[in-house]
Amino acid sequence: MKDVVAGIDIGGTNTVFGLVDKSGNIISENSLKTTDYPEIQNFVSALVTAINKLMEGDAALKLIGIGIGAPNANYHKGTIELAPNLAWKGIVPLAEYIRKKIDVPVTLTNDANAAAMGEMIFGGAKKMKDFIVLTLGTGLGSGIVINGEVVYGHTGFAGELGHTTVVPGGRDCGCGRQGCLETYASASGLVRTVLQMLSDMREESPLRDIPPSALTARKISEAAAQNDPVALEAMDYTAEILAFGIANSIVFSSPEAIFLFGGLAQAGEMLFGPVRKYVDENVQPIFKGTVKILPSGVPESNAAVLGAAALAWNGLIR
Amino acid sequence: MKDVVAGIDIGGTNTVFGLVDKSGNIISENSLKTTDYPEIQNFVSALVTAINKLMEGDAALKLIGIGIGAPNANYHKGTIELAPNLAWKGIVPLAEYIRKKIDVPVTLTNDANAAAMGEMIFGGAKKMKDFIVLTLGTGLGSGIVINGEVVYGHTGFAGELGHTTVVPGGRDCGCGRQGCLETYASASGLVRTVLQMLSDMREESPLRDIPPSALTARKISEAAAQNDPVALEAMDYTAEILAFGIANSIVFSSPEAIFLFGGLAQAGEMLFGPVRKYVDENVQPIFKGTVKILPSGVPESNAAVLGAAALAWNGLIR
Repeated sequence: MKDVVAGIDIGGTNTVFGLVDKSGNIISENSLKTTDYPEIQNFVSALVTAINKLMEGDAALKLIGIGIGAPNANYHKGTIELAPNLAWKGIVPLAEYIRKKIDVPVTLTNDANAAAMGEMIFGGAKKMKDFIVLTLGTGLGSGIVINGEVVYGHTGFAGELGHTTVVPGGRDCGCGRQGCLETYASASGLVRTVLQMLSDMREESPLRDIPPSALTARKISEAAAQNDPVALEAMDYTAEILAFGIANSIVFSSPEAIFLFGGLAQAGEMLFGPVRKYVDENVQPIFKGTVKILPSGVPESNAAVLGAAALAWNGLIR
Repeated sequence: MKDVVAGIDIGGTNTVFGLVDKSGNIISENSLKTTDYPEIQNFVSALVTAINKLMEGDAALKLIGIGIGAPNANYHKGTIELAPNLAWKGIVPLAEYIRKKIDVPVTLTNDANAAAMGEMIFGGAKKMKDFIVLTLGTGLGSGIVINGEVVYGHTGFAGELGHTTVVPGGRDCGCGRQGCLETYASASGLVRTVLQMLSDMREESPLRDIPPSALTARKISEAAAQNDPVALEAMDYTAEILAFGIANSIVFSSPEAIFLFGGLAQAGEMLFGPVRKYVDENVQPIFKGTVKILPSGVPESNAAVLGAAALAWNGLIR
């Protein structure tokens, strides 16, 4: 028999899941549309059936745990709470519902914490005890590891660095406040910055020919790679604000590394170069040179399932 | 025999130390002038002699550990490193020097981390696993506890919240940068804010009759208690910036409580009231109402020795 865990990533649109062994090999995987199941019990039934089906594919496998990444997940309670992008309202005791059908440990956390766990168990942070993963997608998610443990805090919701205020009175944020880090340092923040630069600057740019609703971080990265002055300026400003947030995180927990992950991180050296420069300029002197700014060591395409699986393995191997 | 530890607080001017039992009773204490010992070996000899003398005072005592709070202390290494306010230059392996003369475990950390340990073992955080202590003196020190452990980070220097940048391009800080939290939210920050308000405002104020070099947080608190408009405005602004730093710490580690300690915290409700109001206004919605803002539960006069002693006890009782 070979021990495996199920790693499950629940998104607003799709839920992907896979069976993962201790070394981080995805043995089999599948997905279902989250939006097809507005009733949570129907979702749980469909998910459990699909996982059992993956298990039946290989009689030599033994399922010993389940890890789940989901929005607004409360690690302490195994619940999803008031998630704006999911149909299930209120407080959903998801871990309990699943455990009733599959009797193994079920652990739940948000996707950024799962990403941090994936980095620690299968990625670039294998030998690190203190690091932070920033997921730069539509928003900015963060998973903080201190002394080898993901930080959940008193409420279970710690690690919301995307909602650090970096510009008092700045851009409107989905959280209802203004000037949050994620309104600048994320894929959608970069798009907003380009619009600002198109307003501030007079230079010609192919970005002026794209409707704002069709602008993406990828198109901006491509323009920057072609030395478009607006795209380069926007990338630099994004890096500066991200570095500001990173420098303030460094004085808090003094990590060994910050891993950047997700859509915006795909910009590669165009982002990492200026981020490193601005962190070095802004960080308190005693921390200068102590923190590596690194790309994630987990392949983006598998990261969600591997992160959730890492959460399960972490609970089992300690 | 009764087990005791020695709690030692090394300051730039004075070093105070005492024997402390497991319940936090200070059995005896003494002090020496740090500045009398520019040579570290002479300091260690004098300190060890003085501790042995305290022990000789009561034959029923058994010394089982030593905890030290000191500036620029590295918990991981037991060293004091490049402390600007101490005569001992470079990296001083203080724990090792003391252990050579008294063969018990010796633990070292900075004074704010020691204060957090004191709060956890002897003060208001006895049942808490996630909290932050802010010491509002000449600077702003912080001790961060997550999951029952003080956060030291990769370098051993984590928890420098006083050097979070809160006003980019703002006031000059002793660390060489600008706009650090401690240049606003500390006893000396309050003094700087009063000077700013005296410049901005036209109101009469007794604070206009005090030379800036003689202004203190206490005098400003006293003026505020008399409803002086400049002092009240300065107190409110100080509370607003402090709350801004606190709100950004809450998204990081989601603590159960923030303890305010030191000179500025003596202002009591004049400070705590507006701090609570601004934290509530500024914190991310999911953390609203989850964090208590509290005065320290350790008496200020004994806090330094008790914090250092708590550090020793914490290492012994786990």
